[in-house]
Amino acid sequence: MTTDVCVLGIGLIGGSLLRALGPDRAFGWNRSAAAADAASADGFDVSTDLAHTLRRAVQTDALVVVAVPLPALDAVLDAVAEHAPTVALTDVISVKGPVLDAVRRRGLEARFVGGHPMAGTAHSGWAATDPALFRDATWLVAADDGADPATWSRVAALATACGSRIVSASSAHHDAAVARISHLGHVLAEALALAGGRGGDLALALGAGSFRDGTRVAATAPELVRAICEPNRDALLAVLDECLADLGAARDSLATRGTLGPLVDDGHTARRAYEDLHSGRTDADPVSIRPGAPGWLDVLRAAGAAGLEVRPSG
Amino acid sequence: MTTDVCVLGIGLIGGSLLRALGPDRAFGWNRSAAAADAASADGFDVSTDLAHTLRRAVQTDALVVVAVPLPALDAVLDAVAEHAPTVALTDVISVKGPVLDAVRRRGLEARFVGGHPMAGTAHSGWAATDPALFRDATWLVAADDGADPATWSRVAALATACGSRIVSASSAHHDAAVARISHLGHVLAEALALAGGRGGDLALALGAGSFRDGTRVAATAPELVRAICEPNRDALLAVLDECLADLGAARDSLATRGTLGPLVDDGHTARRAYEDLHSGRTDADPVSIRPGAPGWLDVLRAAGAAGLEVRPSG
Repeated sequence: MTTDVCVLGIGLIGGSLLRALGPDRAFGWNRSAAAADAASADGFDVSTDLAHTLRRAVQTDALVVVAVPLPALDAVLDAVAEHAPTVALTDVISVKGPVLDAVRRRGLEARFVGGHPMAGTAHSGWAATDPALFRDATWLVAADDGADPATWSRVAALATACGSRIVSASSAHHDAAVARISHLGHVLAEALALAGGRGGDLALALGAGSFRDGTRVAATAPELVRAICEPNRDALLAVLDECLADLGAARDSLATRGTLGPLVDDGHTARRAYEDLHSGRTDADPVSIRPGAPGWLDVLRAAGAAGLEVRPSG
Repeated sequence: MTTDVCVLGIGLIGGSLLRALGPDRAFGWNRSAAAADAASADGFDVSTDLAHTLRRAVQTDALVVVAVPLPALDAVLDAVAEHAPTVALTDVISVKGPVLDAVRRRGLEARFVGGHPMAGTAHSGWAATDPALFRDATWLVAADDGADPATWSRVAALATACGSRIVSASSAHHDAAVARISHLGHVLAEALALAGGRGGDLALALGAGSFRDGTRVAATAPELVRAICEPNRDALLAVLDECLADLGAARDSLATRGTLGPLVDDGHTARRAYEDLHSGRTDADPVSIRPGAPGWLDVLRAAGAAGLEVRPSG
């Protein structure tokens, strides 16, 4: 990282990014003065003046990282379009298609490459930030048509500087995947928590490790769960319908034949595949990629489809 | 614990119980010679001769703990009825009504009090056993009509010796509660894992903490998941139907209004109630109970309904 990074929004993700990079390499903006003051007290350069912060990003050719929740995206991108329309731009929002659409509506796509670090906790805000949050995490760096190779490289370098592995995919493929491994999980965690709560204090008292882990993300603030899941509506609806069909089949099998049926074996097989992929990946060589080389986006997408890490070369 | 304990079945739960008590206070039986040999090599007294083990339990007035999976229960209880029909008897199986029914069918209920330590891992077998498995866990000691106070006290002392807190409820109330906080969680974990697996290696590669935690129990061997969940069919069907209705309402709300609706708030509220109950309980005084005193079973059930620990006195 030889360039500055400008982080817009210092909640859990943006704030942790600021901490991971350190005050010498990153500066930021936050809407709420309380968080900005807290960050300043911790030695970070965080302003509450968005226009000023964006003009500074232009002057230093900083990589601007949009780290606000999706509902606040439009206001921030309006300011980028007004004050820093040519800046190199990325984001860390949990859904990629709607962000790309919003960027394109403002003509900001020439130097935009979306991103999504697959990291988080059930807590939020500056107080929850952690410089190690992204260490050994997977950071999705988008591979959309027309992506600027130089910006892609800067986003990849940001992910690497934070200790993350890079996996790449189109925004649409990312959104379909995270509907499965993140957004559905939020919905099922809420449903499990609710079912437990309906059993009263006896059920909650008997709740042990599996209930604790299965409902962990239901501890996330409801407005944040909505901001994460609801913008991915179409992909989430598709996987919810699939899941309802799976659960309905298991329910019917249990009612009529006394067994949950293939769901148990199929779920177990999938969990084992997940474990194998994550335990094996540390040994697998990353796919080397030269951003801008002929067919580079196809190479990125093929590696992502195989679950393989990519690493920029040259 | 001034009496011997005889553990029938040394898988994860029974074997951990053996380890928690130590070879001076417990002996055991196991169907498979491989596990019995492994336990013997570790200094434990584990036979593969069930009749011999049960006669020894009679001679020493040991508390017999049935720790086999439910599908093996009938064969073990047949042997108890033949070789040790008057022995003090408990179990550590994850469903209580079907065990109580099986005990009553053989006329073994006079000295039977069911139990269920709320502890486990996704692993199984002697190699996975852990003497600390029950430490700070909740151990359900059943409060069914006609329970023998002396046996109840021995089961409670066993739980305490293993470091567990005691919560009490009728077998039927236990089964309804664990359908909510354990068995439904198994089904949802399988469904989440399956949904992730259907997204291929990209989805599995992007799976992070929430997917790992939400699918953890799907790593459990499928035959064990079935043995845990399927015997609790009626209670599990009722909560599955509730859950399918909740998920269907969230799905429809997302499709028509773009929001997941009340599920997110209600799930969050329930998760917070779970956290409050478990963080506060360490400070709350246990409910003191004298087994056999007038109304003692009612006191146990009332405490359990309030999620409160009980502790035998006198």
